[in-house]
Amino acid sequence: MTASSSVPVALVMGSRSDWATMQRAAEKLDELAIGYEARIVSAHRTPERLYDFAKGAEMNGFKVIIAGAGGAAHLPGMVASLTRLPVLGVPVQSRALSGQDSLYSIVQMPAGIPVATFAIGEAGAANAALFAASILSLGDAALAERLATFRLRQSDAVGEDPRDDS
Amino acid sequence: MTASSSVPVALVMGSRSDWATMQRAAEKLDELAIGYEARIVSAHRTPERLYDFAKGAEMNGFKVIIAGAGGAAHLPGMVASLTRLPVLGVPVQSRALSGQDSLYSIVQMPAGIPVATFAIGEAGAANAALFAASILSLGDAALAERLATFRLRQSDAVGEDPRDDS
Amino acid sequence: MTASSSVPVALVMGSRSDWATMQRAAEKLDELAIGYEARIVSAHRTPERLYDFAKGAEMNGFKVIIAGAGGAAHLPGMVASLTRLPVLGVPVQSRALSGQDSLYSIVQMPAGIPVATFAIGEAGAANAALFAASILSLGDAALAERLATFRLRQSDAVGEDPRDDS
Amino acid sequence: MTASSSVPVALVMGSRSDWATMQRAAEKLDELAIGYEARIVSAHRTPERLYDFAKGAEMNGFKVIIAGAGGAAHLPGMVASLTRLPVLGVPVQSRALSGQDSLYSIVQMPAGIPVATFAIGEAGAANAALFAASILSLGDAALAERLATFRLRQSDAVGEDPRDDS
Amino acid sequence: MTASSSVPVALVMGSRSDWATMQRAAEKLDELAIGYEARIVSAHRTPERLYDFAKGAEMNGFKVIIAGAGGAAHLPGMVASLTRLPVLGVPVQSRALSGQDSLYSIVQMPAGIPVATFAIGEAGAANAALFAASILSLGDAALAERLATFRLRQSDAVGEDPRDDS
Amino acid sequence: MTASSSVPVALVMGSRSDWATMQRAAEKLDELAIGYEARIVSAHRTPERLYDFAKGAEMNGFKVIIAGAGGAAHLPGMVASLTRLPVLGVPVQSRALSGQDSLYSIVQMPAGIPVATFAIGEAGAANAALFAASILSLGDAALAERLATFRLRQSDAVGEDPRDDS
Amino acid sequence: MTASSSVPVALVMGSRSDWATMQRAAEKLDELAIGYEARIVSAHRTPERLYDFAKGAEMNGFKVIIAGAGGAAHLPGMVASLTRLPVLGVPVQSRALSGQDSLYSIVQMPAGIPVATFAIGEAGAANAALFAASILSLGDAALAERLATFRLRQSDAVGEDPRDDS
Amino acid sequence: MTASSSVPVALVMGSRSDWATMQRAAEKLDELAIGYEARIVSAHRTPERLYDFAKGAEMNGFKVIIAGAGGAAHLPGMVASLTRLPVLGVPVQSRALSGQDSLYSIVQMPAGIPVATFAIGEAGAANAALFAASILSLGDAALAERLATFRLRQSDAVGEDPRDDS
Repeated sequence: MTASSSVPVALVMGSRSDWATMQRAAEKLDELAIGYEARIVSAHRTPERLYDFAKGAEMNGFKVIIAGAGGAAHLPGMVASLTRLPVLGVPVQSRALSGQDSLYSIVQMPAGIPVATFAIGEAGAANAALFAASILSLGDAALAERLATFRLRQSDAVGEDPRDDS
Repeated sequence: MTASSSVPVALVMGSRSDWATMQRAAEKLDELAIGYEARIVSAHRTPERLYDFAKGAEMNGFKVIIAGAGGAAHLPGMVASLTRLPVLGVPVQSRALSGQDSLYSIVQMPAGIPVATFAIGEAGAANAALFAASILSLGDAALAERLATFRLRQSDAVGEDPRDDS
Repeated sequence: MTASSSVPVALVMGSRSDWATMQRAAEKLDELAIGYEARIVSAHRTPERLYDFAKGAEMNGFKVIIAGAGGAAHLPGMVASLTRLPVLGVPVQSRALSGQDSLYSIVQMPAGIPVATFAIGEAGAANAALFAASILSLGDAALAERLATFRLRQSDAVGEDPRDDS
Repeated sequence: MTASSSVPVALVMGSRSDWATMQRAAEKLDELAIGYEARIVSAHRTPERLYDFAKGAEMNGFKVIIAGAGGAAHLPGMVASLTRLPVLGVPVQSRALSGQDSLYSIVQMPAGIPVATFAIGEAGAANAALFAASILSLGDAALAERLATFRLRQSDAVGEDPRDDS
Repeated sequence: MTASSSVPVALVMGSRSDWATMQRAAEKLDELAIGYEARIVSAHRTPERLYDFAKGAEMNGFKVIIAGAGGAAHLPGMVASLTRLPVLGVPVQSRALSGQDSLYSIVQMPAGIPVATFAIGEAGAANAALFAASILSLGDAALAERLATFRLRQSDAVGEDPRDDS
Repeated sequence: MTASSSVPVALVMGSRSDWATMQRAAEKLDELAIGYEARIVSAHRTPERLYDFAKGAEMNGFKVIIAGAGGAAHLPGMVASLTRLPVLGVPVQSRALSGQDSLYSIVQMPAGIPVATFAIGEAGAANAALFAASILSLGDAALAERLATFRLRQSDAVGEDPRDDS
Repeated sequence: MTASSSVPVALVMGSRSDWATMQRAAEKLDELAIGYEARIVSAHRTPERLYDFAKGAEMNGFKVIIAGAGGAAHLPGMVASLTRLPVLGVPVQSRALSGQDSLYSIVQMPAGIPVATFAIGEAGAANAALFAASILSLGDAALAERLATFRLRQSDAVGEDPRDDS
Repeated sequence: MTASSSVPVALVMGSRSDWATMQRAAEKLDELAIGYEARIVSAHRTPERLYDFAKGAEMNGFKVIIAGAGGAAHLPGMVASLTRLPVLGVPVQSRALSGQDSLYSIVQMPAGIPVATFAIGEAGAANAALFAASILSLGDAALAERLATFRLRQSDAVGEDPRDDS
């Protein structure tokens, strides 16, 4: 990530264990053919890396940052404090408090520095990716088309009969 | 809003009482010279208006939708289900449960339909506006400049001495 | 469901995974010989289907609607906004927040559009069916009789000795 | 209430202090010209009155029972255990726990005895009355008409401009 | 329990599934040689049995009542409303809300009718039995002696080294 | 309290500010003519006083101890660990967490040392006193009579009409 | 704070509004004659100041850092990630969630970077100062003496009679 | 622990089952070559042992006390009330309430007696040990060096690629 990046999405997370959740974002980005780089950036164990990543994100060509973290989840908010790019936060489900701590730590930002927050866990990771697609679609007609198709297929895939296993 | 809109942000809310909160978003949009239309759209009392608004939002020229609601807050999620534009949800503080119901109703969307959620109450409203600015800045260099200036001034305005009343 | 229905209860749910919970409602309706149609109607992935279903429910002959959903559970409230039939909401137990999000999203409706809410999970699904029976009993003496019998048998089935495995 | 009642709705509550909340139900019933009797029935301080009221409710001509209570709110559930009429429960906002105790005590009924639960506080009281109207409308075309008119007026009363004070 | 009882403790619970929790109370009563009768009394499915049991408890010779229930746990409070004997409530751990609903439904009694509440689950069941022993010890010197011995042994059984498996 | 006490109830609390809550217990004890001594015993600021009080309580003639405290409320549990007398705990409503911290700190005692817990705040204080009366009534027929009268008057004082201000 | 500091405690907070809470810490430090510097350091609005402060704290002669913040309170944890000095975190009471968000954001740090957390609000601020005194007492016998005196006076100041207003 | 101790850290916990959590503290102390004694001290079952331990801790040479407990976790606060040494509290994850009861019981101490609180469960235990190291480092340059090395290694151990299993 030191060299200028040609992909629009940075996908960062606080530890390797967050990947189980955050790969749902990666899958959705893949599905929509949106480029991304996935990287571990620990707010607490690697604060310098956090600083360097966030300060350089815009210059490195990123358009949107997806940041996932659990517990006292400071990564999304601290990245947002160091860049003006849109930051999407994913609360990873924690052990004792089931992600309620992660959610509060990400969503309750003070006025001035926004973090767009999504649902706790895998649904939130998937939706952060889809939301990144919505943002990027504003300036990318081809992606807008792909997103429209995804949404239509998603609707069509909803069966009518709850007892239907096919 | 029936005619094609020339402003990029739609600012909708579930009832007039939400305006006390949502005007913080309006103020920030004004401050950054971002055009918007403010409108009451009640998911529950005016579901037809909700459908018409959300389905027509993209054609009407909106780029971003900010939606505020309290309690069983269905407005942001239902708008998101009917458009592919980015939807930013603001949980309005409710009476009995202090906005925890509003927050859960907005942020816990299932995978497939994202709503970018912000803090409960006025801070969330202000931040939704700033986040809209982040999104729109990706395709508007002049706005990006204004947002950068806003952020710098915000940092400079933080005094050092907590006992300083000036 | 396009043709006029001859059954009094519509049993809708947000996704196929909700069936594990909602079949408890189906079982109780079967037990009381109350006709129903079970159908997946996703508020978020199929908002048009939601709209069509809810707007047509009364004309299609339904008397009561049971709607189950989890997380940011908008289905019951949105159906209620589009029909004047009694809507019974069942909060499906969610993964991270154990259904507390589902419960708040369903029960905390604003004044004007009621949703009758039941317990989180299977108990709530069963009770929604029994409550539908209570409603329908007001105009159906035979059903009232069956419900009375059900209630008596339920009381009689409660043993006295907690250590009795028979 | 000892003599056979000619009104369809019983409106009971645990103490006089609940009236501040429950009168929202009374107002809505008045507005829709639905007859009701309001009465204090304390599950804990007057358990005999509770038994007598609930066991006699059906014979006394009631069709629907609205029961409001706060804290360890046992009134709705105990009434439901003693009658097969539909029981609508309203969690009154409590002092220390803001009605979360009232809500859990009413909504988390075990499978077998349903209580239809509404929002905490005044919104819930109003909605219980509207829900009673939905139920009674199934067998009363004139009331169905009045409810339809109420709902239309309610929709029409939602203004468009949140800054409009008129 | 129709005939006059010669045992001082009634151990009632809302359903057979509560026995897994409530047998911890039975074990402690056995250990302290305190007589008891265990019985299922469902507040919701057998309200008449509840009424008869609670009204007759004093005359049947009981001195203390231990009542366990889960979810919307109305058994302890309703028993307390119908007797002046001390009622000890045990919140059984529920599935969705982990017993927080049980706890609130039992402990948040209004002024006038007390229920002595203990911890959620097995610890609460055991402690309700020990508390019954404390009460009965006030008038039974031999039991007071046994309780003192139990407490001393309990203290002595606490090892010093947390790594000691013996 | 150093000399042998001739009153059956000790009423202790963690700080003077708890008196606003705990005087509801004193009033009920007065009303039932039960003797008591009220005293501040801070578990945290006066741990020696706590030890002395609790270890000497039985010898000083007390039969029941009512202990109120807020926040990290350790007083009831620590008293219970040092005496075999029945300890009744009252969670005082705290500022930030509304007494939920007080409640958990008192009710969630581990198996082995019971504390009988009552509702948060004034209702809990009143009920602890009434519960003390229930316990003492087991060995005091005159008090049992007074408690029975109190309960009857309490029932009779419940009016029927919620709109009746007399 | 650029020049080497001769005081042992840094007292930082996220915004000027936190001073109302954090001055309780200042008062206790004054009372114990412990030197400190109070400064606003916003993790989100002034992340550079945060980095500079935290990285330079040890070299500037501080021994202990007290950090107060509310909502998504990232200041204590981010300071702790950038220094090896002991960091004491104070959750400031927030508006919507009463400081539960502040508490979770501070206390739920992942393994590797500790923040010592104290109670929500003013009690926590006072206690952070007293805890700083405990730490500094380990290497400062005179302070240890002052702390011992403070603790003794605190114990002596606890009256016995809760009704005593003197 | 009766004889004067030559180790700086006392590691106490309420029961043997807490060891599964608290050994994470022991491991970190071992890793940093900090001496400690581990001991079971139950606030409730062995209050005399608690009293003796806490009163003698300073004289026995301890510098820091780490105390872990679950549920109504009174051990850390009671130890803090009896010593002026820094007390670090670890909320052990409880069964029904996932450690939220443990957290509140430890962190919500009243002004006057501080307990430094860490995260629920194993992360909190590890961090209490690291925080003890921070405190002791103030007066022990060699330990400060080891802690610095530990922190650097911890940062270096954070990989960049979340998909890297090596």
